[in-house]
Formats: sequence, C-alpha cells, structure tokens
Amino acid sequence: MEAAVQDALCELSQEVRDLSVAFEVDRVHGAPDPLVFYRNYVSRNVPCIFTNAISHWPCIRRWTNEYLLEKMGDQLVTIDVTPDGRGDAIVSGPDGKPCFVTPLEERVPFSSFLEELCSEKGEAGRVPYASHQNGSFVTEYGPLADDADVEISWATKAFGHGPDAVNLWIGDDRAVTSFHKDHYENLYAVIAGEKHFTLHPPADVYRMYVRDYPKASYVRDEDTTLRIDYGDDLPSTVPWVSVDPDDPGTSDRFPLYDQGPPPLRCVVKAGELLYLPSMYYHHVKQKPDEQGRTIAINFWYDMEFDVKYAYYKLAEKLTGALSAS
Amino acid sequence: MEAAVQDALCELSQEVRDLSVAFEVDRVHGAPDPLVFYRNYVSRNVPCIFTNAISHWPCIRRWTNEYLLEKMGDQLVTIDVTPDGRGDAIVSGPDGKPCFVTPLEERVPFSSFLEELCSEKGEAGRVPYASHQNGSFVTEYGPLADDADVEISWATKAFGHGPDAVNLWIGDDRAVTSFHKDHYENLYAVIAGEKHFTLHPPADVYRMYVRDYPKASYVRDEDTTLRIDYGDDLPSTVPWVSVDPDDPGTSDRFPLYDQGPPPLRCVVKAGELLYLPSMYYHHVKQKPDEQGRTIAINFWYDMEFDVKYAYYKLAEKLTGALSAS
Repeated sequence: MEAAVQDALCELSQEVRDLSVAFEVDRVHGAPDPLVFYRNYVSRNVPCIFTNAISHWPCIRRWTNEYLLEKMGDQLVTIDVTPDGRGDAIVSGPDGKPCFVTPLEERVPFSSFLEELCSEKGEAGRVPYASHQNGSFVTEYGPLADDADVEISWATKAFGHGPDAVNLWIGDDRAVTSFHKDHYENLYAVIAGEKHFTLHPPADVYRMYVRDYPKASYVRDEDTTLRIDYGDDLPSTVPWVSVDPDDPGTSDRFPLYDQGPPPLRCVVKAGELLYLPSMYYHHVKQKPDEQGRTIAINFWYDMEFDVKYAYYKLAEKLTGALSAS
Repeated sequence: MEAAVQDALCELSQEVRDLSVAFEVDRVHGAPDPLVFYRNYVSRNVPCIFTNAISHWPCIRRWTNEYLLEKMGDQLVTIDVTPDGRGDAIVSGPDGKPCFVTPLEERVPFSSFLEELCSEKGEAGRVPYASHQNGSFVTEYGPLADDADVEISWATKAFGHGPDAVNLWIGDDRAVTSFHKDHYENLYAVIAGEKHFTLHPPADVYRMYVRDYPKASYVRDEDTTLRIDYGDDLPSTVPWVSVDPDDPGTSDRFPLYDQGPPPLRCVVKAGELLYLPSMYYHHVKQKPDEQGRTIAINFWYDMEFDVKYAYYKLAEKLTGALSAS
C-alpha cells in the first residue's frame, strides 16, 4: 500500500503539470479581463506573468534612490536583518543542529537603511532587507502612496474583494527567500531589478520534505554581532520545507525532490506582475538594478479555502502517513 | 497504511462539505453575473439552483401536450425503452448476476411517444423515456426551437464557450436515473414537473463502490417483450456505481456509503435551473405535472480538466488501491 500511495502522489504531481500548470509560466500582455483571469489562472491554480499591466505606475520611473530619500527621509521603517540574507530559513543552530531562524527586526530611519543597502559601507555580516509583511506599503511608506496603485482593479473584481495587505520589499541579491507557501493569492509587482522565482504547485507537497524544526531567532548582543538564540521559553517547532533548490546536497538528502517534473522557474522584471497562486511553494532570489536595489510591491488577497484546499489536505495527510510509516 | 488512507479519504469527503459544498443546495434568485457564477460555483465545484433565470422562456407556459402535438406531430424522435424505467443501470442479468444494461433505442413518431407516455394505453412492461443525449433539442425537436434559448448567455460567458450539446428530456416518474457522473458542466432546466436529485461531490468516490459490470442491452424479440442480451461479442465491462440510495440493502452491502456526510438532495421545479457541477455523482427521479410529463432541457458545457480533476484522480486511485488490498 505504501508503494501505491507513493505512486499515486507522484502521478498527481505529473498530472497537475500535464493538465493545468504546464512547464513554463505564461506571459500575458496587458491587464486581463477579470473573469478570464479568474477562470484561466485563479480557478486552475496556475501562475502567470502580466506584462504591461503595471507599467504605467509612476514608481517604475520615479523611484531612484534620490527620489526615495527625498520623499521618505528619516521616516522609520521596519527592516529584517540577518548575517547572510537568509531569514525565515533553515540554518545550522548553535548546537550544530538545523533550526528555523527568523531575522532580527529593527526600526531604522529609511535613509540609514538605504545607505546600508546600497553603499559599500555596510557592516560585514549584516544583510538588511525591507520585507515587513503587515501592509508596509500603506503603513510605513505613506509618502510614496501616490506612486503606485494600492489595489489592482481587475484583481479586486476577480477575487470579489480588495487586498488584505500591500507590502513593499526593498533588498538586493544577498537576500534569498527559502521555499515556503502562503495562504494567500499573491500579485507580485516588480518595480526595480528582477525577482527570480522557483515554484512548485501545492500538489508537490510529497517531495518538499516539510519537517518540524526548532524555532530560533537572530538576536543582537552589545557587540553588534548577530547570533542565533532559541529564547527562554520551552523550545517550539515550526514545520518548514527542507529542500533548497540551490543546495547541491538536496538531491542526496531528499531523493524524492528530483522525482517529478522540474520546478517552474521564472524571472519577473521591472514593470511586470506575477500572479503567484495560493499555496504555491516559492523560493525567491533577486537581482538589483544599477542603483543596487530590487524593489517590489505585493498584494495579498484572501484565498478560497475550497475543494482544492480540501484535496491538497488529502495529499498532505498521505505524505505525512508515508513519512511516518 | 490502509487505515490511514481510508481515514484520509473519509476526512476529504467531510472537508469538501465543510469548506465548500455545505449540506444544502443554494438557491439564488435571478440570472447571476458570469464572474460571480464562475467564482462561487464553477471554480468551487458547488451546485446551485437559480430561480427566475429561465422563467421567461415561452416553453414553460406553452408546452401543453396539445401544443407539443401540434408542433411536433409525427416527427421522428429517439426514445429509450426499458421494462421498468431503469436504463443505464445495474440490474439482474439473465444468468442471475448483476449487469450494466442500456435501454432499447427506438425511433418513433413523437405523437406515438407522447400517447404512450401520457395515456393509460401504454403496454405493460414498457417504459418510454425521451432521453437521447446527442443534442436532441436541436437535432430532433427543431419545431420547438423558438420556445427556449439554445444557450444560456451568462453561462456561455462564464465558461468562455457555448454548450457542447443541448438535450430535451421527456419522461415520467417511472424512469429513474442511477448514480453516475458526467465529464461536463451541466445546466439543467426543468420545464414541466419536478426533478429530484441526489448528489455526491466527486471526492465521495471512495464510498460509491464503482465496480466493473458486464455490459448488456435491452433487445426486443418478435413478441415485443424486452429481454436482456449480452450480445455476440466478447463480454465487455463497464465501471458503474454500485450504490443505490433507494435500495434499503445498500447500507449492508456497501457499508462505506453511509460513512460520511449525507447526500445533497434537491428538488428542481418547473422554471428553475440547476447548476450540476462536473463530475458530480447524481441520481435522478422525477415527478410529472398534471398532464403526466416531466420535461427538462439540459446544457452540457465542456469542463476544465485541471487541478481539481488531477486531485480527483488521486482519490480515485487510492480508492482502487484500497479495494484491491
């Protein structure tokens, strides 16, 4: 029975790609009709890049470092700091065992952040990333509000409601986002630089090796060095994806990862918008523009917890049963 | 592992109902907006009855027997004949074993069919049902074409294409349709009488006991008696649902059938339109109007074979593996 379940999960992964997702991310020119967007992409849980859908936003030509400094000045913003660009990631803990670590969160003047990010003056062992995800574009970057839409009208019409959160992301190629999934429909607009996505549909859960890792966080001691701390509370754990598409050791340690269709890879450039469907595993790298920044604005829309979600839970439960057997 | 798989399938059935389908069929007044219809019902694979969406069709008040006879006269139509109203059903074969039997197909003048259906003169052991499903409304009932729409504009807009077939159904309470599913999105308009549907979402596959049955058909010998015939070819089989919601023996013979949420039951009355989602198991009974007929027009729209279908196949494969283990 184990073999039959394993085979059925592998076939699911293949069938989702054959029937629905295919092997490349569609590129569609211009803003879509809301119904067509919903039918062809949201309902099917299929990603798509829309070119020329946000290219009229003023931010795309306005947001030089000079402009951003002039508008934002010393306004406080939240930044995530790690020694190596890997926050919310599996790293080696102080005891030598893998742990899930969250970044150090700091509130700093925007000007200091941008200087640290883009100049050569940054401290060694400190990678800052403006990636606060609680609606930061609206709450922390008010002076920039006129430069981009705070909702995407055709998406709001398609989903039947406005976005739950709109976040601004400013970083560079040192920051890498490890595989994870969000319980949101995501529209991801790149303003400067490029975002490089590696994607797996939710049905690939059987080969992502989601495991429980002890939870830790980066803390800063007086000497300013970041260190990993498990905290004083009883150790808690976080379920997180074990595979890393950039780690050459992944295939040996997690052999199922390679047994199935290759991941979907896509590059989203300045002026382009990615529809990243709910529950997709995504790993993200970035390439800065000539001013040293990658900037993006993403829109989280509530997802439907419907029949697709119920079916996903079946695949997840079977994966758990196989892993326990 | 068997137990884990069985539990996961049972939980899927419950979760689909809790998250998406619920326990009663929605009733919505008036024709829906195409996007709202797609998002709330098609994408979620959830049935709905639309009241006042087709009530303006002339057929609903025009189609008395007198009018139908005047328009159709002796035009030949295809009817399905069985001894007991059960065509495309599991019955006891001549060897005493269960078989899947298809009805005898006859081409008869419409006037003869209607007389046989509605008068007391019908032969004993002969139940006629106009249920030819290859676009009969258009191909065989041309004189009635002005009395109903041959497409439903908001549905065509939602699905992105017109219907693949539009069929007319004329029968009475003797004809019962056994549980089966179609690979189509189905819009089912009742013109006269009532249709009584018993529904299970596709995720209930694990408790429908789909088994292979020898294929047979009703044939007519010279003495006009219908008998079951396996044909001259090598016996072939048809996979068909074993459970029958009207058979008190079903619970004993197919114990999983009762282990899960109860079926969705709904009555669709004259002037109402049921959206029957693709792949739903449906069992249909009917109640005639005062002139002795139940009349319906159904629209089959091509379904999307997408991620939901791929997930359904997973549940189907696991059901097969459990049944073989």
